[in-house]
Amino acid sequence: MAPTRKAIMFILDGLGDRPIKELGGRTPLESAATPWFDSLASRGICGLMDPLAPGIRVGTDVGHLALFGYNPLRVYWGRGPIEAAGVGLKLDPRDVALRCNFATVDTNWMVADRRAGRIRHGTSVLAEALSGAQLDNTVEMVFKEATEHRAVLVLRGKELSAEITNSDPGAGREGQPVRTVRARRPGVPMAEHTADIVNRFVRLSYEVLNDHPVNRARRQNGQPPANIVLTRGAGMAVRMRSLADRFHITGGCVVGESTVKGIALMSGFRIYTSPSLTANVDTDLNEKARLTLEALRECNFVVVHIKGTDIASHENDYRGKIEFLEKTDAMVGTVLEALESPDQTYIGLTADHSTPCGIREHTADPVPVVVAGDDVLVDSVERYGERDCAHGGLLRINANEFLLTLLDFIGVTYRFGV
Amino acid sequence: MAPTRKAIMFILDGLGDRPIKELGGRTPLESAATPWFDSLASRGICGLMDPLAPGIRVGTDVGHLALFGYNPLRVYWGRGPIEAAGVGLKLDPRDVALRCNFATVDTNWMVADRRAGRIRHGTSVLAEALSGAQLDNTVEMVFKEATEHRAVLVLRGKELSAEITNSDPGAGREGQPVRTVRARRPGVPMAEHTADIVNRFVRLSYEVLNDHPVNRARRQNGQPPANIVLTRGAGMAVRMRSLADRFHITGGCVVGESTVKGIALMSGFRIYTSPSLTANVDTDLNEKARLTLEALRECNFVVVHIKGTDIASHENDYRGKIEFLEKTDAMVGTVLEALESPDQTYIGLTADHSTPCGIREHTADPVPVVVAGDDVLVDSVERYGERDCAHGGLLRINANEFLLTLLDFIGVTYRFGV
Repeated sequence: MAPTRKAIMFILDGLGDRPIKELGGRTPLESAATPWFDSLASRGICGLMDPLAPGIRVGTDVGHLALFGYNPLRVYWGRGPIEAAGVGLKLDPRDVALRCNFATVDTNWMVADRRAGRIRHGTSVLAEALSGAQLDNTVEMVFKEATEHRAVLVLRGKELSAEITNSDPGAGREGQPVRTVRARRPGVPMAEHTADIVNRFVRLSYEVLNDHPVNRARRQNGQPPANIVLTRGAGMAVRMRSLADRFHITGGCVVGESTVKGIALMSGFRIYTSPSLTANVDTDLNEKARLTLEALRECNFVVVHIKGTDIASHENDYRGKIEFLEKTDAMVGTVLEALESPDQTYIGLTADHSTPCGIREHTADPVPVVVAGDDVLVDSVERYGERDCAHGGLLRINANEFLLTLLDFIGVTYRFGV
Repeated sequence: MAPTRKAIMFILDGLGDRPIKELGGRTPLESAATPWFDSLASRGICGLMDPLAPGIRVGTDVGHLALFGYNPLRVYWGRGPIEAAGVGLKLDPRDVALRCNFATVDTNWMVADRRAGRIRHGTSVLAEALSGAQLDNTVEMVFKEATEHRAVLVLRGKELSAEITNSDPGAGREGQPVRTVRARRPGVPMAEHTADIVNRFVRLSYEVLNDHPVNRARRQNGQPPANIVLTRGAGMAVRMRSLADRFHITGGCVVGESTVKGIALMSGFRIYTSPSLTANVDTDLNEKARLTLEALRECNFVVVHIKGTDIASHENDYRGKIEFLEKTDAMVGTVLEALESPDQTYIGLTADHSTPCGIREHTADPVPVVVAGDDVLVDSVERYGERDCAHGGLLRINANEFLLTLLDFIGVTYRFGV
């Protein structure tokens, strides 16, 4: 097949929804004016997609792992390694990576603010003050800041385990004490050893950060100090061939959100981003269109992640979801109109999971999908919507299958058998 | 999600059927007047369901295991453990359980009646005469009667195997001799040991029962004596988290039939039953409606099993199947009209497998399904039927997926990933 064929996969995070009474029983997608999505449905092949399988509810990480070709039922790393990839840290096979938050505690280590007032400035200086500290003579440590209050801790040694609990008490648990990290099952020496090292790290973070000049300044400005680091989501890297490597594709990912960025990096994709991609409804969609076209010149498979749909859904802001969908539709239109080889470019529309506004949470409802391109078996579906796509020619497939279907159109898949 | 949401799953045993010439090429379900089923289809999301996968034909046990969330392709115990659960016997991990029949043999052990004239009275006395007998000094034995001619044998010891054959020659094999139980593969000591013990039990049953007062009375009344116990379906309990435990649901099952009762008990469900639930077309559907509403007050997931459809199908009584479907429809209507929180209650209609009247046996045809509730993506299907549901928004899913889809609507599923 012609190696000149290319594909773009637009992932509308949390797209799928349910009927909303105030919208006359239609979903936000069914209510929005989306002429470009509909034109893709009209000249494409549509269907329903389950991230993993019907009835299985997934997180953003698992939904995207599946769309990037991983089988999360077999390979699930925990979030730590994904976040580590997101900040550019490469993991060795036995490394343990943890997600971290800069947080605010009082002198009794009660958590006053899990995000230290969503601190935006100074975290690189704070991270540097901690990174490389000697926790144990068998373990190397790297600590690196991520966006806002987020950071990543990587431990490298021969006797480590990711089977440990969190020091972070968790979302909505402000007012509770910092938790002591423990082995998930008692009596496993490697896990107990790792828990011990992480507890030392948390103690050290308080000792180093509490009176750090950055925090003295924050206190003077009435801001909560980032005086401790809380840990969660310990995981180990699993060696698995990346998507780019498996299919010899040059992958590009247009993304502002850190988890998807991490998964794209693990998948061997180049990242196309900019500070104006906020991973929210105020993201810079013009910049997204521009980066998509730039990526398409350099790559043969471009994934474009759009987070705003999910943010609006979690807030039950169905009007905001409609408005953002209409803007996103226009962005897709900008890309389609500027394609250099429209007859050689395949477009996929999909989502990582459903987030119905009325539920404000991910559900297992399948999501509508489209593959449009020059020679697909166009079906009778004319609108991109949850119910319209149920009548499409792809019927009901899962995220891995959707990805492979799209990649097959650009001729990069392997033939199994002779 | 709101923990107040509840669901009812109606299982119409053997529902699915094929076109019948005498019905103008319609199926019994397509021919029956079922206004309540149709109302659920109209305000629900419909589809086709395979118990396991397209083309795979299942028994009642496997169909129900799948609808209760087990994967029978991985975990199939044999019928013995299910029947043991049905009569309230709890199995330890190494126990072997067998289904038994009280049967009638002549003096040469030729089987005259595999069901001893479907004996209904006196089996508890007969069972007591056998239970606790010493078969071997390494094995404990429990023997308990079930409904009619049925009973359960449980063997408890350290050196037992369920890999043994049946002493029962099988359905339709009257006139054949009682079979000697053997190891399924010769030379496996634990299986040979277990076969030996079961053979001793069968011999003992004849010695104890042949002249038992209950049987002397039966002979005087011209009834066939229950003078032997035949065994089959040896299996071991497999430790697996029950459905109720996995999803922290309070499950209730309205049921008269013993196999489904056993599976519901293994699944951690409370049983709602009464002697008037006959597991046949003469069952007390009013009582079934009453018990369903009672269960719904105490549980958040209620399974209602209806056996009559399958009984009529096995007898090729398509008129009886239509009549029973219409009565069942009215029963479902009684439940729907009495719901305390109709907008918080999700209704599933399904079946464990198809039993086309013309075939008189289970087939692999998928069954029609519906999920109705306040916020489902209502599709264009307006009738509950094998062909109508093929156009529904669920498309084609399997029994595990149907169960999870229903449970996802009441917000009890787990999110996989963050």
